[in-house]
Amino acid sequence: MISGIKALTFDTFGTVVDWRSSIINDLSAWGKTRGLAIDWTTFVDEWKTAYKPGMDKVRKGEWPWTTIDGIYRRALDGMAPRYGLDQLDEASLHHINRVWHRLLPWPDSVPGLQRLKKKFLISTLSNGDVDMLANMAKHGGLPWDVILCGQVFRHFKPDPEIYLGAVEMLGCKPHEVMMVAAHNDDLRHARSHGMRTGFVLRPTEYGPRQQTNLKAAEDWDVVAKDFGELATALGA
Amino acid sequence: MISGIKALTFDTFGTVVDWRSSIINDLSAWGKTRGLAIDWTTFVDEWKTAYKPGMDKVRKGEWPWTTIDGIYRRALDGMAPRYGLDQLDEASLHHINRVWHRLLPWPDSVPGLQRLKKKFLISTLSNGDVDMLANMAKHGGLPWDVILCGQVFRHFKPDPEIYLGAVEMLGCKPHEVMMVAAHNDDLRHARSHGMRTGFVLRPTEYGPRQQTNLKAAEDWDVVAKDFGELATALGA
Repeated sequence: MISGIKALTFDTFGTVVDWRSSIINDLSAWGKTRGLAIDWTTFVDEWKTAYKPGMDKVRKGEWPWTTIDGIYRRALDGMAPRYGLDQLDEASLHHINRVWHRLLPWPDSVPGLQRLKKKFLISTLSNGDVDMLANMAKHGGLPWDVILCGQVFRHFKPDPEIYLGAVEMLGCKPHEVMMVAAHNDDLRHARSHGMRTGFVLRPTEYGPRQQTNLKAAEDWDVVAKDFGELATALGA
Repeated sequence: MISGIKALTFDTFGTVVDWRSSIINDLSAWGKTRGLAIDWTTFVDEWKTAYKPGMDKVRKGEWPWTTIDGIYRRALDGMAPRYGLDQLDEASLHHINRVWHRLLPWPDSVPGLQRLKKKFLISTLSNGDVDMLANMAKHGGLPWDVILCGQVFRHFKPDPEIYLGAVEMLGCKPHEVMMVAAHNDDLRHARSHGMRTGFVLRPTEYGPRQQTNLKAAEDWDVVAKDFGELATALGA
């Protein structure tokens, strides 16, 4: 068994929470009460594509520092006319945008984290905002010890500052922290900074026709099909 | 009842945890196993005085950014010869310094926080470090939603950046956040930035002869004798 690990940092969107199903279910139910006939699956698949270009604009200095909440809200405002959402009042648009605070965990996430929390410090390491991640944790019962994220470091993944900053704040050396993610790229960056790596397979994060991250692309320190397997592999 | 509050930020040392008794008890028990005849009460009362001057040196730029762990370790190394601690090995000195990660809550802290957590986001707002506060929370069962502290903002209280930064990361306006502290000064600064204020009386934080903070110095929004009274006052 891999030893010497003191803390685990978790990518959150896709790795811990099932953002796509959560948003489709949440907004479908809410939309029904409002009589909105919107294809929320198409909506969320388009909305999610705003995420990386938004972070890139911040990274290049084209936009000032912007939270993920702010990035999704800009995108929502831009998409609203095409989806017939521009007739909604501000409170409704705010409610839609806040769906990222109401995402639900994959079924194995909470029991796995509860086991891991007994042995390790467990922290988010997400590009989401502090309040987004904290509200999500309350909503879904995620037992984080620490919330670390892009907003804390004013850097989004995969900037080195966020990985190395998290290691420092957790009071560890890089090899004492394992980055856990369902995304090979995230683990590649973590490994390049000396962190340990745990891959958890989430083959339906992007829906039934997902093409990426269907398997471990490198010999990560742990490869697991869910958080239960991860906990077992780490002796938790 | 005061309304419109979404999040509570807590001073931690003295307000949530009884640092002085915790350290005396922890190091007395440990010292006994090592055959050390040290007056730990005198020791901790001197040690604690290193805290504010250390932060001031960081604030003035005389020292580079230094964690609270680092400030106490510098002080410990300076005091060691006078207390006969300079004969100890590095592992023992490290163990002594890490006592700040092992502080225990006042008896009312955990049940009060559990009630408050159901209604509000609850966060530390301490000058302690992230890992110190996270380890302390695990050790004492403190159910924080978020760990915010000097290390996150690279500013110690009472710099404005830490109060205003916490309000922003909690996704709130200042009047939606209540600062909770056993220290009138902390509340004065929080109020000056538009935050709500909750005073909790901790008349023995500095031992039986404490002279300061024995009562509320202003008309704080809530004045309570413990966290149970605070929770009741906030309808939690």
